[in-house]
Amino acid sequence: MADVVRPQRAATVGCGVIGAAWASRLVLSGVDVAISDPSPEAESIMRDVLANAVRAWDDLGLRTDQRGEWRIASSIADAVADAEFVQESVPERPDLKRAVYAEIEQALPSDALLASSTSGIKPTELQAELAHPERFVVGHPYNPVYLLPVVEVVGGEATASETIERAKAIYQSIGMHPVHVRVEIEAFIGDRLLEAVWREALWLVNDGVATTQEIDDVMTYGFGLRWAQMGLFETYRVAGGTGGFRHFIEQFGPALEWPWTKLMDTPPFTPELVDKIVEQSDEQSGHLDVRELERIRDRNVVGFLKVLEENKWAAGSAVAAQRERQG
Amino acid sequence: MADVVRPQRAATVGCGVIGAAWASRLVLSGVDVAISDPSPEAESIMRDVLANAVRAWDDLGLRTDQRGEWRIASSIADAVADAEFVQESVPERPDLKRAVYAEIEQALPSDALLASSTSGIKPTELQAELAHPERFVVGHPYNPVYLLPVVEVVGGEATASETIERAKAIYQSIGMHPVHVRVEIEAFIGDRLLEAVWREALWLVNDGVATTQEIDDVMTYGFGLRWAQMGLFETYRVAGGTGGFRHFIEQFGPALEWPWTKLMDTPPFTPELVDKIVEQSDEQSGHLDVRELERIRDRNVVGFLKVLEENKWAAGSAVAAQRERQG
Repeated sequence: MADVVRPQRAATVGCGVIGAAWASRLVLSGVDVAISDPSPEAESIMRDVLANAVRAWDDLGLRTDQRGEWRIASSIADAVADAEFVQESVPERPDLKRAVYAEIEQALPSDALLASSTSGIKPTELQAELAHPERFVVGHPYNPVYLLPVVEVVGGEATASETIERAKAIYQSIGMHPVHVRVEIEAFIGDRLLEAVWREALWLVNDGVATTQEIDDVMTYGFGLRWAQMGLFETYRVAGGTGGFRHFIEQFGPALEWPWTKLMDTPPFTPELVDKIVEQSDEQSGHLDVRELERIRDRNVVGFLKVLEENKWAAGSAVAAQRERQG
Repeated sequence: MADVVRPQRAATVGCGVIGAAWASRLVLSGVDVAISDPSPEAESIMRDVLANAVRAWDDLGLRTDQRGEWRIASSIADAVADAEFVQESVPERPDLKRAVYAEIEQALPSDALLASSTSGIKPTELQAELAHPERFVVGHPYNPVYLLPVVEVVGGEATASETIERAKAIYQSIGMHPVHVRVEIEAFIGDRLLEAVWREALWLVNDGVATTQEIDDVMTYGFGLRWAQMGLFETYRVAGGTGGFRHFIEQFGPALEWPWTKLMDTPPFTPELVDKIVEQSDEQSGHLDVRELERIRDRNVVGFLKVLEENKWAAGSAVAAQRERQG
């Protein structure tokens, strides 16, 4: 059933950390992938990320013997010429993305779908100059893309509703959990939340209230363990007890009126602030190689996903569905 | 060694969800606890929460046969009269807390420590009328207190530095990971971050961009799985690749200048907004009993902590230390 929508051939344009992780998820899901990226490092990035992805899927107990083929294409046209589905992950510059789309459209089959990994630019803005804007959609993932199931699907003003449905089906066919963001806003859902935390955290560091390590500790030893399984609202529902969410709001809502956060703006990125963050981050994790941190992250996420699958809960269900799909 | 600082006898004042979870952690750590709460439901709340805590510690493979005794005291004075350590968890009203402290001080031994679970009120404000403000400190936990290791330790202007050190040692002796918030601000570290997310999420619901379920899905299928193991800064360090945090800021910092978040204020809690949230939350989780949700949450957190302990990572180290302490 899933195979009806799962593409046989896809292209990924841009092969940084995100693009390579998309390509890895597609390849492990049995899709042939042509990769386009002008960087000479693209192939080695792809090899590294795919190796991580294979290890993670192995640890998760998913099959890795049904892989599609992958290759580095000689050009964008070469990559997309026979693709049914294109996922673009080039840097977050609207002008660059639009120039890339112009190249893609010259070679892309008319019935193929074109998706962007942008984490915040409105699809209406990105599709403005397309000859076929109706088949353009945003599919915003979270890294590591080969493990985290969520993808935000956002259409622009010119996106066809069938494009949304088809994108959701394609993402599901490669083990993901699409969330359709029905109202087009910049930064969508997740990055709005992330940015709110980021700004507040910058103030805490800027004002000397906490170090990067202390902020991370409060998250990882505390509420982070809640958010890997229940989000904000479900957690607070439980906190409200048997009275449901109304009780929670009655109990805690008024505290929102207190001047507790400093949300008005962002501290300017002065050299002093940048130095402070860089030094604190080095102090915190500088002794660990980034590749080693990635492996630790993946081992932890794999472990969490197994727990959630065993407990038949949220993100675990995406893994269970993928396992069933693999047969 | 830990036993030098671990109290033999403690008191918890306030026996709601937080107070009962404190009492449970203390009891399971071998401390005798006297509980004060005027509510006739206090004893049954304590029994329920302790049963959850015992199940969770059993699942985690921690010993539960070294328990202290607990009892519901007849008054605050009765509860604290022979306590070495008091943890107050009454509702977040400064006047109420100060009235409770006045009662506590009349009976509390002079060498005992007095801690508050407040999630945001400044200790300087809370200790203002105390006869012995130097032994007062905030110890802000995260629910479920018997599982999540973090506790924010915050002193007020009159708090002695020995009190901070002693509080940290006591919390460590019952398996927690204290983070000393060195600058006294309202909402400390964690609740500043939580509130930033809460406000942004309220706007998303208010503006019809997303439902409570969709917001929670983006978190639990996405970045929540990161924050259970690496916080904001460590995650972004990894995203920055081998260039360290400076590279991350250079790459993504400018996006902060974009008008992506709506952080200036909170949407007014109109009856319409409250109804909307309540209906969406009922739709999302109304079919699940809150007690059942608590059990699912605990099973998931237990699983995550086991993964982290096995991988020798962050919150897992608090469990490992507790295991070693138990012998």
